[in-house]
Amino acid sequence: MRDFLPGDLVRRQFVAHRIRQIFESYGFLPLETPTIENLSALLGKYGDEGDQLLFRVLHRRDKLARALEKEEITEQSLAELGLRYDLTVPLARVMANYSHLLPRFFKRYQIQPVWRADRPGKGRFREFLQCDIDITGTKSLIAEAEVCSATACALQSLGINKFSIHINDRRLLRSMIMAAGIPAEMEGTALIAIDKLDKIGETNVRKELLNRSISHQAMDSIVELMSSEPQHDSAAALTSIQEKLASQNDANDSINDLRDLCALLEKTPAGPHVKVDLTLARGLGYYTGPIFEIRSPDFSGSLGGGGRYDGLIGMFFDREIPAVGFSLGFERLMLVMEDQGLFSQLQIGPDVLLCRFADVPATHALEIATDFRRQGLSVEVFPETPKIGKQLAYADSIGAKTAAILGQSEIESGEITLKHLSRKQQEKAKISEAAKILKMWVTSETDTEADSPDDAIDSTE
Amino acid sequence: MRDFLPGDLVRRQFVAHRIRQIFESYGFLPLETPTIENLSALLGKYGDEGDQLLFRVLHRRDKLARALEKEEITEQSLAELGLRYDLTVPLARVMANYSHLLPRFFKRYQIQPVWRADRPGKGRFREFLQCDIDITGTKSLIAEAEVCSATACALQSLGINKFSIHINDRRLLRSMIMAAGIPAEMEGTALIAIDKLDKIGETNVRKELLNRSISHQAMDSIVELMSSEPQHDSAAALTSIQEKLASQNDANDSINDLRDLCALLEKTPAGPHVKVDLTLARGLGYYTGPIFEIRSPDFSGSLGGGGRYDGLIGMFFDREIPAVGFSLGFERLMLVMEDQGLFSQLQIGPDVLLCRFADVPATHALEIATDFRRQGLSVEVFPETPKIGKQLAYADSIGAKTAAILGQSEIESGEITLKHLSRKQQEKAKISEAAKILKMWVTSETDTEADSPDDAIDSTE
Repeated sequence: MRDFLPGDLVRRQFVAHRIRQIFESYGFLPLETPTIENLSALLGKYGDEGDQLLFRVLHRRDKLARALEKEEITEQSLAELGLRYDLTVPLARVMANYSHLLPRFFKRYQIQPVWRADRPGKGRFREFLQCDIDITGTKSLIAEAEVCSATACALQSLGINKFSIHINDRRLLRSMIMAAGIPAEMEGTALIAIDKLDKIGETNVRKELLNRSISHQAMDSIVELMSSEPQHDSAAALTSIQEKLASQNDANDSINDLRDLCALLEKTPAGPHVKVDLTLARGLGYYTGPIFEIRSPDFSGSLGGGGRYDGLIGMFFDREIPAVGFSLGFERLMLVMEDQGLFSQLQIGPDVLLCRFADVPATHALEIATDFRRQGLSVEVFPETPKIGKQLAYADSIGAKTAAILGQSEIESGEITLKHLSRKQQEKAKISEAAKILKMWVTSETDTEADSPDDAIDSTE
Repeated sequence: MRDFLPGDLVRRQFVAHRIRQIFESYGFLPLETPTIENLSALLGKYGDEGDQLLFRVLHRRDKLARALEKEEITEQSLAELGLRYDLTVPLARVMANYSHLLPRFFKRYQIQPVWRADRPGKGRFREFLQCDIDITGTKSLIAEAEVCSATACALQSLGINKFSIHINDRRLLRSMIMAAGIPAEMEGTALIAIDKLDKIGETNVRKELLNRSISHQAMDSIVELMSSEPQHDSAAALTSIQEKLASQNDANDSINDLRDLCALLEKTPAGPHVKVDLTLARGLGYYTGPIFEIRSPDFSGSLGGGGRYDGLIGMFFDREIPAVGFSLGFERLMLVMEDQGLFSQLQIGPDVLLCRFADVPATHALEIATDFRRQGLSVEVFPETPKIGKQLAYADSIGAKTAAILGQSEIESGEITLKHLSRKQQEKAKISEAAKILKMWVTSETDTEADSPDDAIDSTE
C-alpha cells in the first residue's frame, strides 16, 4: 500500500485528468461505486484465484460475537463484505439496481482504486487504480469500436504511441478448440493454457495441456490453427483462419465481426494499432465475443484489456443486457511514462511565497494574501519571521515561482518588493498593482512552457 | 454505502473541484494515503467509541488458518489491518515516515473517503468523503488563521454564506475547568459533557456531570464561566473570561491567542464569520490549542471542525511536530447545497449525438466522430440505426446539446445536417465545417450561462 506525496500525486492527477478528458470526449459519463461490496456479489466472478485475492471485512459487534460462538468458525462465517476487486462487477450490479434511471446505451467511465491481496510486483500493487469504460445495452460493433478508439486516444494523449491493440473473439476461440478436437468441457482449461502462449512459450503450454489430458494431436491442431503467415497482417490472419475453419459454419460470424471491427477502427485513433491475434485468450470467464488487450514493447505484460460480456449483467438481473468494456491499468501506464520520460516537470509550488520582515504585523500579510488570492494567484504565507534570506531560500526549496516581501517602511509608502525567483529579477511595486505584475510573471511562464492551457496542472519543462 | 450515478457524481466532482481550487490557492499540496492502514496506527486515536467503529480486514490464508487454530479466537486475533477512519492520523503517520522529503511547513490537503461503521443518519454514511487541510511544523497562529480562512473561502466559493466559525481553545477550557474546581483527572469527562451543551441543553449536561460525580457547585461555576454577555460579541466574551480568570495566570496565553487569531482573521474571508464560543469543546482527545467548528443555521450539527494538535505526530515519531488542521464534512455540504438550491443544473450529456440513416456505413460515422473529437467536441455515436426520430428523442433524453445527422445522399455531396436541440434550430453544413458550427453553438451556450469558464464541468442554468 502506498502513500502518494505531492510530487507523485500531481503526476497521477495529471494522468487521470487526461484520461478523463478523453473518455468524456467520447461521451462516457462518470460512475462511482462503494469500496465495500457484498461478498455474494464478488465471489464466483473472478475464478478461484480471484476469490482468494479478495480482501474480506471482518464482522463486528453482535454479528462477530454470534460467529465466534459457533462450533465451526470459517472464513465464510466471519465476513459477508469485501473490498471492490474490479470495476466491471460493480457496474453489472449497478445496471441491475438502477437500469431504469440510466440511458438505454449507458456509456460510463469509472476511475477508482481496487484491492487485490496479490503478491506485489512491478506495476502490481494491493491497492491500485483502474480506468474502465463500458457501453451497455447494444450488441452493435460500434460499441467495441468506441471503447477501442477511446482507449487508444487516451494512450496517445499521454504521449504513449508505441502500443498494439491485440484483438480476437471468444467465439472464434471456441470454434478453433472444437475444430482441434478438444472436448467442449475442456474449453476453459484450454483457454487458460492458450492465454499463456505469449508468456511461457509453446513448449510449456504443450506440457500444461498434456497435464490436463489434452492430446498432442489436439495441441498440434490448435497451434496450427492459431499461427498465420505473414504475421502482423490482420486481414491475412482472418482469411487464413476462415479457410482453415471452412467446414465450421459457426466460425463465420466471429471472423466477419473481427473483419468489420478492423474496418470500423481504421480511421479512428486505434486504427494503426489494431492487430488480429488468434492466440489472445484473456483469462476471465465472462467474455462472450470480441476480446482486446494492449501490449507495448516498453512493458512486459498488458497495459489493459477488455471485451464483450453479454452474460455478466444478467447474473445480477432478471434479463440479459449486452455490454462491452475496456480497462486501462493506471499503475502500468505510470511506469511506462516514467521509464520514457513522458512527464514534463509538474510544478507543485505556489505562485507566490509571501514573506515579511519581523516588524510587519501578520495581519497585513494575511490581508494582502487574501487580496492576491482573490485575483487568482496561489499564495503561501511564510508563517514565521526569520531573516528574509532564509524565507527566500524556503521559497526556492518549495518551488515557489515568485516571492513578495513586505517591509514596514515600504508598507507605509504603499509598496512591496516582488521577486521572480528563477529569473532572479526583483522590483518594487505599488501594493495595489502587485497582483497584476505577479500574475503576468506567472502566466507568461505557463504560456510559453506549458503543454496546453487547459491542463489540470501547470506543466513546465 | 452509496453508488453515485452520473447526475449525482458531476455535482460531487463540481464541489470537490471548487474546494480543491481554493485549497490550492492557499498553497496547500495534495496528499493521498492508502485505504488500508495497520490497526496499530488507528487504534487508541479516536476514543473507545471510535475504535468500535473501525472496519477491520480479516486475515487471509495461512495467517487466518493460524488464527483459527488458536484456542481463543478474538476480534484482535483475526485482523491487523483496518480501513482509514479519518485523514488526520494518516497525515501524522506520513509525517513520521517522510518528514525528510517534505517541506518544513508542510501544507497539505487531502480529499479522500473514510469509513466508519456508524449507524447511518442524515448526512452520515459509512463511506464518506472528507476534505482536510493541515499545516505542520509551526506554532505560529498564522497557521490557525490560514486554515480558518481557507475553509471559509471554500464554503463561500460554493455559495454557502450563512455560517459561523466557532472558536475556542483547549488550554482555556482546562483553565476554566480548574477554576471551577473540577479535578484534573475529570477533565476529559467534563469536556465530553460540555461538548454536548449545544446539543442536549444545560439541564441534561448537568445530569451527565452529576452522574460522573462532578458537583452541582462545580457545574454552576463552569456554566457561569462559559456564559458571557452580550452574546455574539467575541471581544466582550474574551474580556469577560479574562476578568473572571484573573487569578489564573495560565489562562492569559490562550485568551491572548484567541484575541490575536480574531485580529488575524479580520480581513480574510473568515473574518465576518468568526465567533468566540467558550462552550465549544470538540470531542477528540488530541487537540492542544485553538479549536474550531463550523455551524450553519441550515444544518443541525457541524459542517466541519478542527484545531491545533501539537502532540499527535509525536505519537508516531521520535520528535514532536506541531500541527493545526481543519476538516470539512463533504456530505453535509452536499446536503446544505441541495436544500438551498445552490447547484446550478450541471449538464452531463455530450456536445453532439451523431446519428445516421441505416444506409450510411458505420465507418463514416466513426471517422467523423474522430474528427469532431479532435476539434474539441464531446461526441457520442448512436450505435444502432432505428428511425432518425427515435435517435433524436434519445439525444434529448440524455441531454445532448446538439445532434448531427448523416444521410447517404448528403455524404455524397459532402454535407451533414446539424440540429441545435434546445433551440430546435436545424441547418445543413459542409462536413468539413460542421465541427466549427457545432462548437460555436455549444460554446455560446456555455459562455452565457456557465458560472465560470474554467469550471471542471459545464454548468448551465
